[in-house]
Amino acid sequence: MLIVMNHNATSDEIDAVKAQIVECGFEARPIPGEQRVAIGIVGNDGPVDAAPFQDLPGVAQVIHVASPYKQVSREWHPQDTIIRLPNGSRIGGGHVTIMAGPCAVESREQLLETAERVAKAGATVLRGGAFKPRSSPYSFQGLVEEGLKILAEAREKYGLAIITEAIDHESLELVEAYADIIQLGARNMQNFALLKRAGRSNKPVMLKRGPSATIKEWLLAAEYILAEGNSQVMLCERGIRSYDDATRNTMDITAIPLVKRLSHLPVVADPSHGTGRRPLIAPMSRAALAAGADGLIIEVHRNPDKAKSDGGQTLFPEQFEELMTGARLIAEAVGARLQSFQEA
Amino acid sequence: MLIVMNHNATSDEIDAVKAQIVECGFEARPIPGEQRVAIGIVGNDGPVDAAPFQDLPGVAQVIHVASPYKQVSREWHPQDTIIRLPNGSRIGGGHVTIMAGPCAVESREQLLETAERVAKAGATVLRGGAFKPRSSPYSFQGLVEEGLKILAEAREKYGLAIITEAIDHESLELVEAYADIIQLGARNMQNFALLKRAGRSNKPVMLKRGPSATIKEWLLAAEYILAEGNSQVMLCERGIRSYDDATRNTMDITAIPLVKRLSHLPVVADPSHGTGRRPLIAPMSRAALAAGADGLIIEVHRNPDKAKSDGGQTLFPEQFEELMTGARLIAEAVGARLQSFQEA
Amino acid sequence: MLIVMNHNATSDEIDAVKAQIVECGFEARPIPGEQRVAIGIVGNDGPVDAAPFQDLPGVAQVIHVASPYKQVSREWHPQDTIIRLPNGSRIGGGHVTIMAGPCAVESREQLLETAERVAKAGATVLRGGAFKPRSSPYSFQGLVEEGLKILAEAREKYGLAIITEAIDHESLELVEAYADIIQLGARNMQNFALLKRAGRSNKPVMLKRGPSATIKEWLLAAEYILAEGNSQVMLCERGIRSYDDATRNTMDITAIPLVKRLSHLPVVADPSHGTGRRPLIAPMSRAALAAGADGLIIEVHRNPDKAKSDGGQTLFPEQFEELMTGARLIAEAVGARLQSFQEA
Amino acid sequence: MLIVMNHNATSDEIDAVKAQIVECGFEARPIPGEQRVAIGIVGNDGPVDAAPFQDLPGVAQVIHVASPYKQVSREWHPQDTIIRLPNGSRIGGGHVTIMAGPCAVESREQLLETAERVAKAGATVLRGGAFKPRSSPYSFQGLVEEGLKILAEAREKYGLAIITEAIDHESLELVEAYADIIQLGARNMQNFALLKRAGRSNKPVMLKRGPSATIKEWLLAAEYILAEGNSQVMLCERGIRSYDDATRNTMDITAIPLVKRLSHLPVVADPSHGTGRRPLIAPMSRAALAAGADGLIIEVHRNPDKAKSDGGQTLFPEQFEELMTGARLIAEAVGARLQSFQEA
Repeated sequence: MLIVMNHNATSDEIDAVKAQIVECGFEARPIPGEQRVAIGIVGNDGPVDAAPFQDLPGVAQVIHVASPYKQVSREWHPQDTIIRLPNGSRIGGGHVTIMAGPCAVESREQLLETAERVAKAGATVLRGGAFKPRSSPYSFQGLVEEGLKILAEAREKYGLAIITEAIDHESLELVEAYADIIQLGARNMQNFALLKRAGRSNKPVMLKRGPSATIKEWLLAAEYILAEGNSQVMLCERGIRSYDDATRNTMDITAIPLVKRLSHLPVVADPSHGTGRRPLIAPMSRAALAAGADGLIIEVHRNPDKAKSDGGQTLFPEQFEELMTGARLIAEAVGARLQSFQEA
Repeated sequence: MLIVMNHNATSDEIDAVKAQIVECGFEARPIPGEQRVAIGIVGNDGPVDAAPFQDLPGVAQVIHVASPYKQVSREWHPQDTIIRLPNGSRIGGGHVTIMAGPCAVESREQLLETAERVAKAGATVLRGGAFKPRSSPYSFQGLVEEGLKILAEAREKYGLAIITEAIDHESLELVEAYADIIQLGARNMQNFALLKRAGRSNKPVMLKRGPSATIKEWLLAAEYILAEGNSQVMLCERGIRSYDDATRNTMDITAIPLVKRLSHLPVVADPSHGTGRRPLIAPMSRAALAAGADGLIIEVHRNPDKAKSDGGQTLFPEQFEELMTGARLIAEAVGARLQSFQEA
Repeated sequence: MLIVMNHNATSDEIDAVKAQIVECGFEARPIPGEQRVAIGIVGNDGPVDAAPFQDLPGVAQVIHVASPYKQVSREWHPQDTIIRLPNGSRIGGGHVTIMAGPCAVESREQLLETAERVAKAGATVLRGGAFKPRSSPYSFQGLVEEGLKILAEAREKYGLAIITEAIDHESLELVEAYADIIQLGARNMQNFALLKRAGRSNKPVMLKRGPSATIKEWLLAAEYILAEGNSQVMLCERGIRSYDDATRNTMDITAIPLVKRLSHLPVVADPSHGTGRRPLIAPMSRAALAAGADGLIIEVHRNPDKAKSDGGQTLFPEQFEELMTGARLIAEAVGARLQSFQEA
Repeated sequence: MLIVMNHNATSDEIDAVKAQIVECGFEARPIPGEQRVAIGIVGNDGPVDAAPFQDLPGVAQVIHVASPYKQVSREWHPQDTIIRLPNGSRIGGGHVTIMAGPCAVESREQLLETAERVAKAGATVLRGGAFKPRSSPYSFQGLVEEGLKILAEAREKYGLAIITEAIDHESLELVEAYADIIQLGARNMQNFALLKRAGRSNKPVMLKRGPSATIKEWLLAAEYILAEGNSQVMLCERGIRSYDDATRNTMDITAIPLVKRLSHLPVVADPSHGTGRRPLIAPMSRAALAAGADGLIIEVHRNPDKAKSDGGQTLFPEQFEELMTGARLIAEAVGARLQSFQEA
């Protein structure tokens, strides 16, 4: 439930509403706005009765939030959330950001060369895993902090913002210190302890959809982050698991316009993991943007055939340049602003 | 296997190759081309040895077709198949055709009014079911031949080509007589007797993907039609079944670029059944075209809220007009030619 | 809706109820019982008002059937349906019948030898496809009528009842003439024309679940058969499609107790197609019986490694004998009666 | 790869093999046996060449382990792993243990009363969540340490061993201190940091299958635990996600015999989460045991209709007693030993 105050409500009136919420056994979440303050009620397991609130002085309106997620819903926050990165690139509200880079940071040379190529082609964010969650304990697990340092160097050199994955509390502290966006991976979508920790960070978070997560579970997972106070969250569709192995995953493009109706959070698409196949990445990038995606995250490597992981779904730099050309045309066709260093 | 003849091969040489194929226990499928003749071999359950053919006089090249489907594969027929409708609209090879109309023909007035609206908005093909395959034996099953007559009248009045579904041998004979495209539905994708019958028709066929069909099964189902001699086949992605009920089906947009790589047949998308939800149809239409679809089939009704079936996924005529505006922009952005009556 | 008459209701009273049903625009389906007559109402697309019926003379009770399927529901027919085969073997109501034989009839010798082995091991029904629905048009399609004749010969020799698949109207007429049970395959579960034709047969029908059919769709498909007058229907769980390719399909064993709660029809299990892997067939046969299955259908071949289809999921005769030993122990543990020739 | 030493190999010979393994860049895992020592090689990402090892003195045999999981595979460890609990109950190798109790510990009275009932009915392990991973941040999250203390009290009173879930490092330390089996839930199946931590525990671990995990991913997740040194791991099938919402999940009973072929680890079944529906729990318990499960974990509450979570899939104590009767009959039919306090 959301209690919207009159635009001239006094701070005493606001405090009285908050006190009443606490008295009823819930938590109060004030949401300051330009015109008026709203106070959200969370902590309830079922519906909340409006009666104790609707006639309090200064209350303009009581809005029932029907969905199980509250702060991520459009009812709670009708305007698009826009995430602003330190390099000026924006995500959401009609701003489209392209993130690109290798699956994993493998070496300084590999990363810097790839970073230069994706920056020139128009990406404003660099991806690259330093902590790799791998199905097998015996697979390459990443360069850890050394990888983060290389990413930070690339940021200095090419002006790219940095996104990289955290897989537990320890790695999250490091990622938070080095990167501009904390990525939480599909396998950790319901790692609630990690979600809560990310909710206490002051860095934006990209939350990937679990391979069999429903839209509702995905938004509830995001709610864990917002419930701890971090509202800089973007969602990433990266394909779901289906019966057909013709592609690595089944990209649920429909999730993009659907989530954007249900939530104010930006939604980006990962056609590299979504398809798992190089020739399908460019057309699926166009499809995602045509459906309203606020960004793309693309695996690019200076030499995909030598990549330590995910080579088959990683583009050559020239293929990424072509992809950018197509992405620009589609972004224009749907009236979106593709972010660039000029803009940034 | 495909045997490509020299461009100056004599008809005696061609006949000798055909005779050799029959002698080996297979069937010969001559494929005349502008420059040279090719002869396909079908009827084999496993790989065919090239030896008996490669040194015959007039043989230029023997091409092994690795996929289990033969005549639908790009290896067999590298150029895009283009389907030309009687009203001039084309599907495939960069030509995009929009098909629209109600789920079912319910009455003369309903159909004609809807037909007029979709024609004005730019559709060149009218859809409308006269034979409805319904999950329950007690649901409305369509107007049958009366429905076909109404569709034919709409064609006369508005110049639209007609697509409508056949569900068994009897209805196929009628659909063949009245319509311009025979639609085979998702539930019948592996009704092999019906596929074979459609393969003996001289009308183009639209084959919908079964709700849990793999790409391979879908292409093999199309192969049943081509194997009987009808090569005017287009495929229709209409959503697959997944675990999330947030949408009616999960649109597998990736199937569009993937099938277009594997096959020369046109691929169209059905975002009405694919999503089941009105507000998602326009964005998913854009996504499908951005991914390379050769057409769309959209449910439109003069009054969706009174539709006898599928109302929740059916657009109002004004919504369809908006969809067309978006579709035109995306088609331009990917360099495709949206078919119109001017062109037709 | 189901109208239950008093046990001393007169035939005039019954006729009056039927007339009232027709007047309301529905169809009447009298269901004679030992104690009293009930009259079902079908042909309605939504709920039916009880008012016009409940006060008619002779009416004891009006039962609303909530499910979309009517005649297949337990509400409509609370007692288990028991199917009695000509050789005395029964299916349903605590009677468990084992059906076994090759995927396809390949030759007289192959079938007769396999039939002798499965009969000796305790099967009372022989399976074997004469019409094979195959994903590829170029695969072996069965011996057709010749196969049916061989099956009939095996019945004469070994006393087994015969089950074999029909794939279209033509093959159904032949199967009906030669076999004891008409099998409708998974791909044809929603081939409504074929379901209706089977509903006009006087032979029992085994309806396999489609690979992505919901329980509701499956029961509605069975309703098509009952709605045409044939109530000798059994359902067959044969695995559904999931994301894991460790097995050919995912056997939905839970469907067995669930369907038996919702419906009075017998349910049998097909662990051969359900698992696709020889070593899993015996344990999954035990699981199905422990969950309450009324029968099993098992692929057995005198030499599975030479089978023309499905070899990898086909048992050697000795493996089938072992399976029977385990099946007997489980049937006893759940209080079911495994049918045998002694009983038959 | 696994290097099996001669039964009279000297410790010098064993050390030389270990040194050679390290020299090749891998890790050595000695596996002492009654007859002979084996040394496993882990840490390799691909196949290992046998050449440097096969001719070393004392080496009897070099066994290639084809699967990506090593220590969990049957090739590595052919005998069934048997887990022995402090109260004497055993799991695996033909010993079947029944675990039962409420979804969550809600209060001392609720837990003790339920514990008494399940102990009397024949369970030897008590379940009950103190840390609840919930989809929504606003749902009941468990009594935490207070809940563990109540569980420990129940163990004292009724002799039951305790299983309860850990959801992060903090809760794992507590669970380890109080409980007899550490449960890792489906959502954490690929929380690799948590798996590694559990691998350093000296308590047995029950690893639930993720809702869309393949068999291979599940076994690789278990490998993370064994790779850290804890070989007391049992796997729990609790249903996978499919397209049909007739049940909460789709129980993949086939996974039971399949995993038991691939691995030596015990496999238990959770028909409460697997079905989500009270009347299906008993038949699916029988099915799981008939398929070879080494145990069951069942939700039982003194009053399910008042349970704070999962009420609809929780049995009344009397229903659990009936389930035990059926379970005993099936266990006998497959030759398994249902554990009881007599045995314990």
